Amino acid sequence: MPPKRQRAAVQESFRSMTPSQFFYEYKEVAGFGSPARALYQTVRELVENALDATDVHGILPDITIVIERVNENSNYYRITVEDNGIGIQPQYVPYAFGQVLYSSKYKLRQARGRFGLGAKMAILYGQIRTGRPVEVYTAPIGSRKIYYFKLKIDIEHNRPIVLTKAEYPNPKGWHGTRVSLVIEGDWWHSKHRVYEYIKRTAIAAPYANIVFIDPNGNVVIYKRSISKLPKQPKEVKPHPHGVDIELLKQLISGSQAKTMVEFLAEAFRGVGRKTAEAFLEWAGIAKNLDPHSLDDRQLELLARKLREYQKFRAPSADALSPFGPEIIEAGLRSILKPEFVAAVTRRPRAYEGHPFIVEVGIAYGGEIPPTNEPILLRYANKIPLLYDEKSDVAWKVVDPHNFDWRNYLVTFPAPVAVLTHIASTKVPYKSVGKESVADVPEIEQELRNALREAARRLRGYLLQKRKEEEAKRRIITFMKYTPEIAKSLAVILKDYNVSEHTVREMLLSAMKRRLRIEDDKFAKLVEGLEVDIEE
Amino acid sequence: MPPKRQRAAVQESFRSMTPSQFFYEYKEVAGFGSPARALYQTVRELVENALDATDVHGILPDITIVIERVNENSNYYRITVEDNGIGIQPQYVPYAFGQVLYSSKYKLRQARGRFGLGAKMAILYGQIRTGRPVEVYTAPIGSRKIYYFKLKIDIEHNRPIVLTKAEYPNPKGWHGTRVSLVIEGDWWHSKHRVYEYIKRTAIAAPYANIVFIDPNGNVVIYKRSISKLPKQPKEVKPHPHGVDIELLKQLISGSQAKTMVEFLAEAFRGVGRKTAEAFLEWAGIAKNLDPHSLDDRQLELLARKLREYQKFRAPSADALSPFGPEIIEAGLRSILKPEFVAAVTRRPRAYEGHPFIVEVGIAYGGEIPPTNEPILLRYANKIPLLYDEKSDVAWKVVDPHNFDWRNYLVTFPAPVAVLTHIASTKVPYKSVGKESVADVPEIEQELRNALREAARRLRGYLLQKRKEEEAKRRIITFMKYTPEIAKSLAVILKDYNVSEHTVREMLLSAMKRRLRIEDDKFAKLVEGLEVDIEE
Repeated sequence: MPPKRQRAAVQESFRSMTPSQFFYEYKEVAGFGSPARALYQTVRELVENALDATDVHGILPDITIVIERVNENSNYYRITVEDNGIGIQPQYVPYAFGQVLYSSKYKLRQARGRFGLGAKMAILYGQIRTGRPVEVYTAPIGSRKIYYFKLKIDIEHNRPIVLTKAEYPNPKGWHGTRVSLVIEGDWWHSKHRVYEYIKRTAIAAPYANIVFIDPNGNVVIYKRSISKLPKQPKEVKPHPHGVDIELLKQLISGSQAKTMVEFLAEAFRGVGRKTAEAFLEWAGIAKNLDPHSLDDRQLELLARKLREYQKFRAPSADALSPFGPEIIEAGLRSILKPEFVAAVTRRPRAYEGHPFIVEVGIAYGGEIPPTNEPILLRYANKIPLLYDEKSDVAWKVVDPHNFDWRNYLVTFPAPVAVLTHIASTKVPYKSVGKESVADVPEIEQELRNALREAARRLRGYLLQKRKEEEAKRRIITFMKYTPEIAKSLAVILKDYNVSEHTVREMLLSAMKRRLRIEDDKFAKLVEGLEVDIEE
Repeated sequence: MPPKRQRAAVQESFRSMTPSQFFYEYKEVAGFGSPARALYQTVRELVENALDATDVHGILPDITIVIERVNENSNYYRITVEDNGIGIQPQYVPYAFGQVLYSSKYKLRQARGRFGLGAKMAILYGQIRTGRPVEVYTAPIGSRKIYYFKLKIDIEHNRPIVLTKAEYPNPKGWHGTRVSLVIEGDWWHSKHRVYEYIKRTAIAAPYANIVFIDPNGNVVIYKRSISKLPKQPKEVKPHPHGVDIELLKQLISGSQAKTMVEFLAEAFRGVGRKTAEAFLEWAGIAKNLDPHSLDDRQLELLARKLREYQKFRAPSADALSPFGPEIIEAGLRSILKPEFVAAVTRRPRAYEGHPFIVEVGIAYGGEIPPTNEPILLRYANKIPLLYDEKSDVAWKVVDPHNFDWRNYLVTFPAPVAVLTHIASTKVPYKSVGKESVADVPEIEQELRNALREAARRLRGYLLQKRKEEEAKRRIITFMKYTPEIAKSLAVILKDYNVSEHTVREMLLSAMKRRLRIEDDKFAKLVEGLEVDIEE
């Protein structure tokens, strides 16, 4: 054990901190910096846990979110989130809620939560201001009992303090988790974000039932609109390009392999005996070497060579679950009511061994108000991100200073919105509060490619629209003279028994051929115009 | 102990993490996301530790920073930073460098470092890629020995692994610390930021000697330009407005006080017996209550009342060390070579019990290029902040969308730069990487007030300039006719023996009175013009 809190002869004293003390001192780095932000962040963390307990495991989510004011005139709020997920085994509950850095989430699989920190931060933040414990009801699938815990976090020692524990019968076979806690909040300054967050979560999970009751008793219900779950992300082995010395050590100490070939084929995603042998030959490492015998220098060499070797199979996307273009288009239509949408889901790629998929949707016109910059809707692993937009890689890509929108016939102010989604086993968030994504070059490039692809389709639409407008202008000009010309021609053609009406039809038809417009579109244009002209 | 790594019947397994494992997994949240950023971040963390070991303790800093490429063709870099600070007692060295969340920095005092995490992140990042240990030489003040350690971090257990330990005689009485480590870096993509960081650090610490040697052998020396150290920040007691239940528990458990009055007077900054008694009366809490007897509900009440009571003395600024307007003005002149500068140091204020001081400098014209937005130079506790500008509260304040620069006669594009400094016992950083400051309302308001104050002076300058330009235009118009008029008048006045020259002087002098310009300024204006006209 290190020396603690002793006062050194020359001024400085040292001490160690537990993880809970650390996050207690620096709660704002996890999004708990003010009552308003904390209220939003608490809802987020609990809802994301609820979704991770359901759709990730093949369950259609039923989620209820309730925010209540504890007393009429206080700023204490009770937040309760209930899901129908896989539940938590009772022996884990105290630690899952009462110990910082204890979680089921440290896995190579796309999930909303990543740090296993959020719910505990909410509990900690609630406890230090309101003094109230968290209450948890949970039942794993098939459990004959419902388990109840009332607990606090012993911040100094990073340990749960269980205040009450109970078991109830579970005759209806309920499974899921219900978490309820009281924090100091600020509904007035957070309600817009909370509403926006829930709406955009519902759009991203149209297969979920979400019920939200706000502190004023308003009820919002997002009913399940599709009952097909997205493909479940699988847990995967690490990719050799994401390896460092520490990970190698962990993998070797967890492995029974006696030779390098065995070890590589067993530990890494997409590496078989053949690939392993080819790699070892290339790297100049003996195939039968016992991986447990490697010293630090050899580990450094192995890790470096694994990162450098170019012939490994690309990271697999099995662990990923993108939205797909249909959900993105439907989402954009429902939020923004635009006249045009296009969505692109790119093929999987990887950075540092982490597979990722980028998706971009563009919406244009309709009810979108013209703005000086594109409206940006960011998602990462299906979570909407609402804060710190300008420091996100997605902003960097759509920013008119960096992306030449004029090439795509968009000049600002313009009614244009962009949705971005990054799905990955590891989203490179810039902060523990998960609000903005770092500008990893591979992700930035994919975002840019996806944006270009979607913007090209927008360009096609705008070109067509421009062409139609141009045609319309010409038709208007022409139509002004049509009656006159038709009349004159009809006089000339009278002997041939051609009526004025027929002549007019002939003229319009000639014009249609000239402008190369499809029949129905032309009819529509002319129809509108006749009304205009008659008026 | 919690159950570890067991597989639950329903799919999910749980495990706990040590703090070093956590930051290993999520190193990008601490600024170690890529080799380029990591190289910059490593320099930052080591330089900030060096400054915290010197000026905070009344020592004029001598700091040497060396970055070397380890092999010709590799991307491994050795970074070495040496200071003449207070050194570290040898018994603390292994933990101070080999255990995450062990530090001397968890104090109520303005310091650059806050998390006690940075150097360890650099060591950890170096070790997992290059496999190299950190090397530390240190000697506390007055030490007869220099201590040497070569160590790594046992990431799984968050413990130091000391590889080598040695002692050397210290005949010259050297004191300070020299840290040297090897990381995977990217000098090409980080050199601009590294140079900018060191330059702006030197500007903020003109009392320091800083020598920097880059990987190409280029040497940059910032010589001490003043030898007066800023006022040393003192360590202070917490302010009652910053209190929560957890802090109260900590303070009570560390106190011998038998009554509430004693406890409050002893534990809090600026609270004496009288204030304590008045507060307790207001809060309806018995004066002689034993603080150790309080239960959770009473603690909640006490904490809440302490936050709400409006008659405590404002938090003291003893713990703070602002730049002062002179250093800011000198700094802006030296970086930007502007034609005008103004700097404002506001009076201390507080948020949640943490005292803070905001400073703002404005520079205008000269060699500043006109840009569409103000150039922003951010500092927090004398550290330059270079990343994530747009998510910083300072950007929010200077952003032309939020601040009406036209009121101050600035219309963009304009050659204007703003320097901001926030000094506090706790800068509310948004992330562990310390790159942007959260928009705490009190800080935002102070920044806005300071900006207004500085901008008003800029307005004064620009008004004067505009007036001079207006005068110049009039003079030009007038001067065109002066010779003609003078000639005509001279003819008329010939009988009175008045020369053409005298008439001209009279005319100019009349104009000068009319325009109300000081003599020397007028002379300058006219001088310039005569040249123009003669040409």
